[in-house]
Amino acid sequence: MQLVCDIMGADKPLEELISGVIDAINIHDDLKVIIAGPKERIEACLNNFEYNLSQIEILDATDVVTNLDQPTRAFRTKPNSSLIMGLNRAKEEDCDGFVSCGSTGAVLVSSTFILGRIGEARPCLASPLLNQDGNPLLLLDCGANVECKPEMLLDFAKMGVSYMKAIGLDNPRVGLLSNGSEDKKGTDLVKETNGLLRNSDLNFIGNVEGTTFLTGICDLVVADGYSGNILLKGVEGAAKTIFRDFIIYSKMHKEATGVMDAVKDIMNKYDFNSKGGAILLGVNKTVVKGHGAANSETFKSIILQAYEASKGKLVDNIKNLL
Amino acid sequence: MQLVCDIMGADKPLEELISGVIDAINIHDDLKVIIAGPKERIEACLNNFEYNLSQIEILDATDVVTNLDQPTRAFRTKPNSSLIMGLNRAKEEDCDGFVSCGSTGAVLVSSTFILGRIGEARPCLASPLLNQDGNPLLLLDCGANVECKPEMLLDFAKMGVSYMKAIGLDNPRVGLLSNGSEDKKGTDLVKETNGLLRNSDLNFIGNVEGTTFLTGICDLVVADGYSGNILLKGVEGAAKTIFRDFIIYSKMHKEATGVMDAVKDIMNKYDFNSKGGAILLGVNKTVVKGHGAANSETFKSIILQAYEASKGKLVDNIKNLL
Repeated sequence: MQLVCDIMGADKPLEELISGVIDAINIHDDLKVIIAGPKERIEACLNNFEYNLSQIEILDATDVVTNLDQPTRAFRTKPNSSLIMGLNRAKEEDCDGFVSCGSTGAVLVSSTFILGRIGEARPCLASPLLNQDGNPLLLLDCGANVECKPEMLLDFAKMGVSYMKAIGLDNPRVGLLSNGSEDKKGTDLVKETNGLLRNSDLNFIGNVEGTTFLTGICDLVVADGYSGNILLKGVEGAAKTIFRDFIIYSKMHKEATGVMDAVKDIMNKYDFNSKGGAILLGVNKTVVKGHGAANSETFKSIILQAYEASKGKLVDNIKNLL
Repeated sequence: MQLVCDIMGADKPLEELISGVIDAINIHDDLKVIIAGPKERIEACLNNFEYNLSQIEILDATDVVTNLDQPTRAFRTKPNSSLIMGLNRAKEEDCDGFVSCGSTGAVLVSSTFILGRIGEARPCLASPLLNQDGNPLLLLDCGANVECKPEMLLDFAKMGVSYMKAIGLDNPRVGLLSNGSEDKKGTDLVKETNGLLRNSDLNFIGNVEGTTFLTGICDLVVADGYSGNILLKGVEGAAKTIFRDFIIYSKMHKEATGVMDAVKDIMNKYDFNSKGGAILLGVNKTVVKGHGAANSETFKSIILQAYEASKGKLVDNIKNLL
């Protein structure tokens, strides 16, 4: 198992992310990480750790793609960046995947361009969430494809199923995001997609709404990239606001001593960003894009997520299902 | 001020809703309510209350439109229903508005057909929410128009502004729902609407995301009926799940004092349905559609909401702005 880790372009300094790399390789003996970034700084940082030397390799990349770079041009304007050099390295046969906490747009476009699509399917971004019982729930597309056609959504569903299978779920239940649970509800896009899913071999349970998708009614929710993003951010916004209310309540009611403990406990469940990254499905390697603010613990999780998906033969699964 | 109240087609018996009517007329001396429903049962119920007789009138309607009736056909198949008779009465010049907790689809279609549109604008459903500081926030369209054009969204914005003005907000800030805050983000529909809003006289603050729309960044959020519905239900679903987590936590941590009190206190803020109904904007009277599960307290709030909007000259405001 060999993964390329782009440690640049994130909010935190590379030292923070390298600490996550070390934690990850210490968990899996069979994992080798190729760290893409400025060699000297990486070497200086690695000197602070004890680890199995054969599990780390450095890919010297002097340039960085930032959020200021136009995503569509990064692979032309910054060929020596950790992102572009890392992806070129990840493309080689001995590599299984690529992880980065850099610019979402640049990771998305450059991965698609360099690693190539699987067949005709349009790559999409899948967000791993947890349902109310703490079980995995995948929401896709979360923003890679703002304008979609029904066939694209069917492909997203297949790719989502492939991912859930890769992480160990046998016959994942597929829901289609809509504004009503009845088959005839939704935009033309949703209604046509509903028909395609009904006629597919997937374990399609029908339309799901924002009110129910977290209840465990299905294992993955398919949406166009616009609606998926609206739903994801709506949940995030509501969670943030409600936790804020509990924190304010706790400050105003000194006698309510249990409230802050409850907040910390429950908030953690909804901190999806710290548990892993979004998965770019539909390219020829496992690609995980972590949150820009990732710390070492999060970066470790992201690497482990890429490891698990690659072990579960994500790319082969997608090839088989498409 | 004269409002027609359809007390049929809701989950609760009419006696529950009539109790809300009485509470509402006891607040405003200048409010007269025309109760549409079966006369005998209404009279029997009214005998239990003390009230100013001149503030109540009964419109005898023997039939009921239910969720099983096809919304588009109700005005043909059930002319003697409280919904259709009530709307016909509300259409008369001496009436200001109409409220109902019956089938959303039937209220929407029948109101538009009977009361008529204001100009060319497509009527839309606006949900009054509260932002994180407890101030009014309007989200529209929440589901009346699943497929939209940019001009429709501009009209929704104007109608939303008219409503916020009617309830006392002078120069409401308009946000456009999108998957990113930059002007160029979103579907073609969103991008074109952004241009229309930029060129309008409205107080347009730009695109808003699900992560920020509750923070008080704007006073109303415009969306197509599909995305608006997804966002509304996503927030509702997240809130439900998070409150469930706190309740479970409280049960499992007997020592954690104050958690259930906090839940009750904060939950109330997010129980949008008990604070009022969705407003149907763009028809020639004030129309408020309450939740099917409305109790007397909620029904009172819905009537007061229609009263306030009518007092604030909602329909005239819309006519002026369109």
